[in-house]
Amino acid sequence: MKEKITKKTDTLSPYLIISKKRDGEELTNDEINFFINEYTLDNIPDYQMSSLLMAIFLNGMSTSETNALTKSMLNSGSILNFDERSVVDKHSTGGVGDKTSFILAPIAAACGIKVPMISGRGLGHTGGTTDKIESIKNFNTSLTLDQFQDYLINNGIVLMGQTNEIAPADKKIYALRDVTATVESISLITASIMSKKLAEGPKGLVLDIKVGRGAFMKDLPKAQSLATSLRNTGLEFKKNMMTTISDMSQPTGFAIGHSLEIIECIETLKGNGPKDLIEISLHLAGGMIFIGGKSNSLEEGIEKAREAVNSGKALDKFKELIENQGGDSEVINNYNLLPVAKVKTLIKSPISGYVQEVIPDLLGLECVKLGGGRKQKTDLIDHGVGFVLNIKIGQQVEEGSTLITVFSNKNQIDEVDKFKKLFLENIVKISKDKINTPKIIIETQIDWGTGNV
Amino acid sequence: MKEKITKKTDTLSPYLIISKKRDGEELTNDEINFFINEYTLDNIPDYQMSSLLMAIFLNGMSTSETNALTKSMLNSGSILNFDERSVVDKHSTGGVGDKTSFILAPIAAACGIKVPMISGRGLGHTGGTTDKIESIKNFNTSLTLDQFQDYLINNGIVLMGQTNEIAPADKKIYALRDVTATVESISLITASIMSKKLAEGPKGLVLDIKVGRGAFMKDLPKAQSLATSLRNTGLEFKKNMMTTISDMSQPTGFAIGHSLEIIECIETLKGNGPKDLIEISLHLAGGMIFIGGKSNSLEEGIEKAREAVNSGKALDKFKELIENQGGDSEVINNYNLLPVAKVKTLIKSPISGYVQEVIPDLLGLECVKLGGGRKQKTDLIDHGVGFVLNIKIGQQVEEGSTLITVFSNKNQIDEVDKFKKLFLENIVKISKDKINTPKIIIETQIDWGTGNV
Repeated sequence: MKEKITKKTDTLSPYLIISKKRDGEELTNDEINFFINEYTLDNIPDYQMSSLLMAIFLNGMSTSETNALTKSMLNSGSILNFDERSVVDKHSTGGVGDKTSFILAPIAAACGIKVPMISGRGLGHTGGTTDKIESIKNFNTSLTLDQFQDYLINNGIVLMGQTNEIAPADKKIYALRDVTATVESISLITASIMSKKLAEGPKGLVLDIKVGRGAFMKDLPKAQSLATSLRNTGLEFKKNMMTTISDMSQPTGFAIGHSLEIIECIETLKGNGPKDLIEISLHLAGGMIFIGGKSNSLEEGIEKAREAVNSGKALDKFKELIENQGGDSEVINNYNLLPVAKVKTLIKSPISGYVQEVIPDLLGLECVKLGGGRKQKTDLIDHGVGFVLNIKIGQQVEEGSTLITVFSNKNQIDEVDKFKKLFLENIVKISKDKINTPKIIIETQIDWGTGNV
Repeated sequence: MKEKITKKTDTLSPYLIISKKRDGEELTNDEINFFINEYTLDNIPDYQMSSLLMAIFLNGMSTSETNALTKSMLNSGSILNFDERSVVDKHSTGGVGDKTSFILAPIAAACGIKVPMISGRGLGHTGGTTDKIESIKNFNTSLTLDQFQDYLINNGIVLMGQTNEIAPADKKIYALRDVTATVESISLITASIMSKKLAEGPKGLVLDIKVGRGAFMKDLPKAQSLATSLRNTGLEFKKNMMTTISDMSQPTGFAIGHSLEIIECIETLKGNGPKDLIEISLHLAGGMIFIGGKSNSLEEGIEKAREAVNSGKALDKFKELIENQGGDSEVINNYNLLPVAKVKTLIKSPISGYVQEVIPDLLGLECVKLGGGRKQKTDLIDHGVGFVLNIKIGQQVEEGSTLITVFSNKNQIDEVDKFKKLFLENIVKISKDKINTPKIIIETQIDWGTGNV
């Protein structure tokens, strides 16, 4: 192993950079840049990177270090640049039942925003945007960057899967973090998210930071730290930013599972969505409209978003997105065209009372177990399985009323039986105590990276 | 990379073990054992081990974790067991000019102690015992464990180089620590030293913990922490222990360099050694004699050690060691048989005054530069080069008196010129202020692992 570390410039050595971070010192831009470049080129081995990652995890990084890390990772691949204020993307840190992209992107596009979505696949207990949209037959997420740019300019909306051309350093580092227990670091999360989003070339970014049991950030202070870190980096790159912290103490909306979530999104675009899903979608779309220069305030942006739903224009945009990328837009009228699992099992409430808890991460993991997620990278996903809840925290339920419907396949009777037990014992909690429904939007902040013009 | 981590038992996962240590929790014996075993078997990749090592470095390990780590590493290879109180080894944490092994081992052996030395090679700025003894032509350090045991039983003294049979886990982990900036961790150092020393099967251990610029532990509190950690682990394994903290703020003795140090050792065994080298050697040998049951007190042990030098018995033992392992013992009478470099350069004092500093680590690194150490594992060592100092801190010197003699080869004129400048500007400091010579022995503690009988 000795040989590899001798590969260095005169002044920069992987060993000394690791030692410096280990001792809590601030790394220079050159040091960060050197480490990321050489790692991406396979000149620094995984074992030195994982050592540095753990030192970063435990000792943190300053804003300036995080910005340098983001920049190095951004520069490891292609960078698009649209130079138009109306180009605004949204990113969510991920949760269970979090399907807002399919609602807010058509809404924002219908209001004149251009939405350049490059989205990931499912991770752990959280589903992935790219996986969900692929419930629609023949929807093509494997675009070239040229196609991506063309669609964005012509249609104002485009959705592609991650590509090696964008931030390849992030891809390599993420795979390593995933197996070395270095995922949940504010600086590393910031650089990972921002390097990919900045590469899309937007002028504005709406970031939805989820907090609660179903999210990576389990408590508000951590979510606030991440929001601050993302904001600082966004402003360094002169982006208009809306950072929203939203609740993930329970699933968003009622549906969990790929096809089931797409149906819920279409229903929401038709005006029939669950209250919390409508609220967060309109809020985030309103933010995109505002920072993208298509309204004079966030409130006006939200109003415009609501009108885009009511007028049917947002649904039309969703239809356009599907057709443009080769999918069958008839799904909008005929949900039978989506692969929904055939066996429905209803789980009923054994008592009357108020819903205290609906634990999202356990539901997410159970959906993975039914086949609606990957245990290994190479696993195929069953787009049809999942759950539709009938409840939200704070809701009153009667004994015998349906709490959740499980969508499974014929050979999954045993799994469904186990799920039923787990659901009633560990996932849902009902008691006589009244409890308030948690607010979905916890806080929102808008910052102007380029001036409000 | 995903595939490798699925290789685990039902309850133990590398990822969860890393997370636990990352979060500052205490690992169980089973978790530590699993991680070390699977890593040694190549079932856990380097990048997960280096992540764990950095987490251990930054979050520390409890005594019980350190003991479990030591045990796992010890059990990764062969373990000898002599079951005789008189079998006592000594280990030094390493420094510059630290050549006490060649003095104290013959002394202790002459007093009835059996000394099973398995020694390492040079590391960074510090020389290695095995490298130094190989200055003596044909001295064979590549023994089998059977030979090692025979020599120990028959001669009471034996010196072999490290072997893959002893603590292979340590070898693999050390190589990784060396390139991932995780060397200077109290727990990792303890497990590394103790796993190798315990495998030699001694009943007693004398540990010399060096402190100061020339040592790995730069200040007294760190040296004391290491002493405590080594002592705790030794006692867990029921060993009689003497732990000594000694000064490495300047080189020990006057000679630095392989042949030059061997000559200084022979001179010391003849009764002509430098004061500090005699003092530390007699102290450590006295400790070995005492905890090995051959004297009734440390003081009596030291007295016996002194007598072994004065009577010539210690020198005879050294001769026996050389002959037994194939070397030419005539070197004892004829230093020309040692490969001493031919070009001598004297560096004189530009002023009169008192020696304030003789910086050991820089001298060690300069010796490496002249060829007397390895920059890469595969480098050959020049046993002839090095330095002989004429000074100690606190000593009065006159303008024009010799401070140091450089032993180099003909083609090294440029290096020697550079060294001269560096020596006068950065290594030695002379001023009008009087200053005390630092005491070589800072503190010593004796603990009985098996009862003082």
